[in-house]
Amino acid sequence: MPAPRRRDIANVTKEIDMPILHLQMHPGRTDDQKRAFVREATKAAVETLACPPESLEILITEITRDSWAVGGKLKSDA
Amino acid sequence: MPAPRRRDIANVTKEIDMPILHLQMHPGRTDDQKRAFVREATKAAVETLACPPESLEILITEITRDSWAVGGKLKSDA
Amino acid sequence: MPAPRRRDIANVTKEIDMPILHLQMHPGRTDDQKRAFVREATKAAVETLACPPESLEILITEITRDSWAVGGKLKSDA
Amino acid sequence: MPAPRRRDIANVTKEIDMPILHLQMHPGRTDDQKRAFVREATKAAVETLACPPESLEILITEITRDSWAVGGKLKSDA
Amino acid sequence: MPAPRRRDIANVTKEIDMPILHLQMHPGRTDDQKRAFVREATKAAVETLACPPESLEILITEITRDSWAVGGKLKSDA
Amino acid sequence: MPAPRRRDIANVTKEIDMPILHLQMHPGRTDDQKRAFVREATKAAVETLACPPESLEILITEITRDSWAVGGKLKSDA
Repeated sequence: MPAPRRRDIANVTKEIDMPILHLQMHPGRTDDQKRAFVREATKAAVETLACPPESLEILITEITRDSWAVGGKLKSDA
Repeated sequence: MPAPRRRDIANVTKEIDMPILHLQMHPGRTDDQKRAFVREATKAAVETLACPPESLEILITEITRDSWAVGGKLKSDA
Repeated sequence: MPAPRRRDIANVTKEIDMPILHLQMHPGRTDDQKRAFVREATKAAVETLACPPESLEILITEITRDSWAVGGKLKSDA
Repeated sequence: MPAPRRRDIANVTKEIDMPILHLQMHPGRTDDQKRAFVREATKAAVETLACPPESLEILITEITRDSWAVGGKLKSDA
Repeated sequence: MPAPRRRDIANVTKEIDMPILHLQMHPGRTDDQKRAFVREATKAAVETLACPPESLEILITEITRDSWAVGGKLKSDA
Repeated sequence: MPAPRRRDIANVTKEIDMPILHLQMHPGRTDDQKRAFVREATKAAVETLACPPESLEILITEITRDSWAVGGKLKSDA
């Protein structure tokens, strides 16, 4: 297959919606869990929001328990 | 059923991970599409990240095509 | 008092930490509630993080109940 | 006290507002400073926004001085 | 020109870095100002970060002066 | 030059718009690339959005390829 051309990307990204999903959670999940999450969450978006799978980006940020609080207490103190 | 007590929430939220998912997309989806997305994305998270469904929050922000750019062009100009 | 000079701002902002606080909540609070929140949250940051009050920025984003979900359900459906 | 039941959390989270506060600052604060910040910022929110303490989540992200710029200069160069 | 094929986008997005730039500012800029900003900011990213222009997304969120505070005061009160 | 006074900063920050730019990208850029990016992106904002350079803050968050997905696949698997 020939290398994709840049103007192809440009054309397509102009036409379609490109949702961005940002997940914030504690560290500790394995790569396999992240792999499964992005696969299944992308399916969920494709089926419900009518966007092609290629258009969805997912970013994961991990925040440790000593930087996440509920009810005025750090999770690491709870 | 008796009203849930606050210390119940406090106790549980201390123990469990509470991932937050933030979706950014163009406006135009119906309430039914959002309803389906949060249901299916929550399932995806529960199955892959091992968190109880009650622990997951999803926030949706809609960004119009004249405030979203790809390749140096506003989507509304593309 | 003379007008502040730009190089003053530039000098100071180089030296100090400038925390940013982003609040996401449902709409419905009055301006007075927001006014009180930014005043008290700034005090909290100044007292605990050792930053001058002028250095702290607070941004508030309001997200409606039909764009916020917990447990797989939109708040507006709960 | 009996273990809290999941439907309790589900019920309560449906009814109440659950503001999220995201703090971005340079690294360098101690755990005690973070601990004090989340306690005092939660008080500030509870008193001014009329939400129960259990409903407020605070996330802290630390961004180093070589990844934060003001006036076109990285803080680490200032 | 034939319609771009989906696998083209998929291939390319796998290979390249796709930075996301999020701008938060007060409302009031014209569409022409936004148009110029996304054009020039994309050039800046392409020249300095070595990414193709098509790979950069820019999102703009407008936050009113009564939802943005500095020094404990809403901008609308200053 | 005398040390800038705090009320100077307070005065100025009340009057001017203070846009915040948040860049998310993969790690791997050198400090020089970041330095050049914040310089050029600030110029772009100053020229197009009519804000003084001192007013613009830029934050950079680096997200590894195993925490960023497109099309349902982690970049590290692509």
